[in-house]
Amino acid sequence: MRHIVVIGIGSGNPEHMTVQGINALNRADIVLIPQKGEEKAELASLRRAICARYLTNPRTRLVPFDLPVRDAARADYREGVDDWHAAIAATYRTLLAAHLAEDGTAALLVWGDPSLYDSTLRIIERLRAGADFAIDHTVIPGIASPQALAASFRMPLNTIGGAVHVTTGRRLAREGFPDNADTALVMLDGDMSFRHLAGDDFDIFWGAYLGMADETVISGRLADVAETIAATRAGLRGRNGWIMDIYLLRRR
Amino acid sequence: MRHIVVIGIGSGNPEHMTVQGINALNRADIVLIPQKGEEKAELASLRRAICARYLTNPRTRLVPFDLPVRDAARADYREGVDDWHAAIAATYRTLLAAHLAEDGTAALLVWGDPSLYDSTLRIIERLRAGADFAIDHTVIPGIASPQALAASFRMPLNTIGGAVHVTTGRRLAREGFPDNADTALVMLDGDMSFRHLAGDDFDIFWGAYLGMADETVISGRLADVAETIAATRAGLRGRNGWIMDIYLLRRR
Ligand SMILES: C[S@@+](CC[C@H](N)C(=O)[O-])C[C@H]1O[C@@H](n2cnc3c(N)ncnc32)[C@H](O)[C@@H]1O
Ligand SMILES: C[S@@+](CC[C@H](N)C(=O)[O-])C[C@H]1O[C@@H](n2cnc3c(N)ncnc32)[C@H](O)[C@@H]1O
Repeated sequence: MRHIVVIGIGSGNPEHMTVQGINALNRADIVLIPQKGEEKAELASLRRAICARYLTNPRTRLVPFDLPVRDAARADYREGVDDWHAAIAATYRTLLAAHLAEDGTAALLVWGDPSLYDSTLRIIERLRAGADFAIDHTVIPGIASPQALAASFRMPLNTIGGAVHVTTGRRLAREGFPDNADTALVMLDGDMSFRHLAGDDFDIFWGAYLGMADETVISGRLADVAETIAATRAGLRGRNGWIMDIYLLRRR
Repeated sequence: MRHIVVIGIGSGNPEHMTVQGINALNRADIVLIPQKGEEKAELASLRRAICARYLTNPRTRLVPFDLPVRDAARADYREGVDDWHAAIAATYRTLLAAHLAEDGTAALLVWGDPSLYDSTLRIIERLRAGADFAIDHTVIPGIASPQALAASFRMPLNTIGGAVHVTTGRRLAREGFPDNADTALVMLDGDMSFRHLAGDDFDIFWGAYLGMADETVISGRLADVAETIAATRAGLRGRNGWIMDIYLLRRR
């Protein structure tokens, strides 16, 4: 039985690594390191920094590989993603067969926590179902970006006894602020959907590049800071070529 | 300026500790260790195990103290909690004044992640506002129980592009399953509020004592497993004298 261990590496700060994650890394025979096709150079370099800093087992080998790229030109978005996941699963399968003994372990390093808006676990299910050899897997939790945001602002995510609605920018734009929570935590928002909300009704706590050198946070009444966030975001994005941001909205 | 560092210690497994948390622990002059009044002996013993395992700085002192106990007999629940928090803040104030030099650092170890259904950050705000000396604080994120649950089931919390409604047992009982998410994550539920939902409409993923020796998980169609969970929970709770459990509900 080949084994895959999916390790949550935290949200940008290499010190988010847990002892459990470090130990799992050092028990692995290989660590799969995506390179070309990888979203952002910084994410790839965090993976390498983590291995350089925490990998002490001389028998663990790094296996760099080219992650298949999604065909963004596909008319049907869902089908495009589906094919892309199938291609990644096939790549993993080939790597496991080529680089791993039958009882060997491969580590996969996943940004943040593997349970939050990440496709790795779904891809592994698909890989396990389709492979012609036996594969098992385990998951090691990591510090997710909502926790990095809360820590940076030294704030609880929830009000006392309140609910927290974790959602995407797309959903916030479509559905508006949830009526069953006083807190919304918004991820994956390339469109700054907070601009469609009534600015006097909410406070916003916004963070970009959390845990990284460029960490930038802005908070205040949405009406007061929405434009500052938009301008800051555009500036950072222009300078770095990419941005990763998350925010919490709280009903006033 | 006296400094407090609030360290998330993870949800039961001592290996949830992050490198950031371990380093902060070892930079502290004192670590405040609640004893009497502490909810459960196991939680206190995890704090001690973490110090025993990760504290290597010989100058860091453990300062055990009695955490004030909430007066459960108070008629007004909110007022009772408010007075209790004030008493804890006063206790912290006394400890900081007695055990810490003016530029010293005290560490507080918080279960899971400090941002999720925990009052420590609110108590520190109150302490800072009321103290007659200057206090600063920082927060270090930890592995929260929802992530421990997801890791145990090797599952994503969200469906693809879906929202996750994080809520309490009390709210689930009062409001029912959210209509704006296909996933609800329920914490702080002493009443097994899942029993009030239509059992054919949901899958449940339930976990108790996650990351600990007694970790127990059950999943399935709610109609099929609700009674098993209820019986298992009662049995474990009877045997251990306490239980800590969390569950994810997903619309089928
Ligand atoms: C594909 S999801 C992955 C989330 C990740 N699994 C986690 O646990 O945070 C990427 C989204 O996470 C958020 N995110 C992740 N890391 C972040 C960081 N360091 N700073 C700000 N936002 C971040 C952003 O909302 C981004 O759009
Ligand atoms: C007062 S809240 C603290 C939550 C904590 N700050 C966190 O990040 O998970 C306690 C609730 O968290 C959940 N919980 C915390 N640790 C748990 C564990 N090891 N197993 C199951 N549930 C847990 C339960 O729902 C419990 O009622």
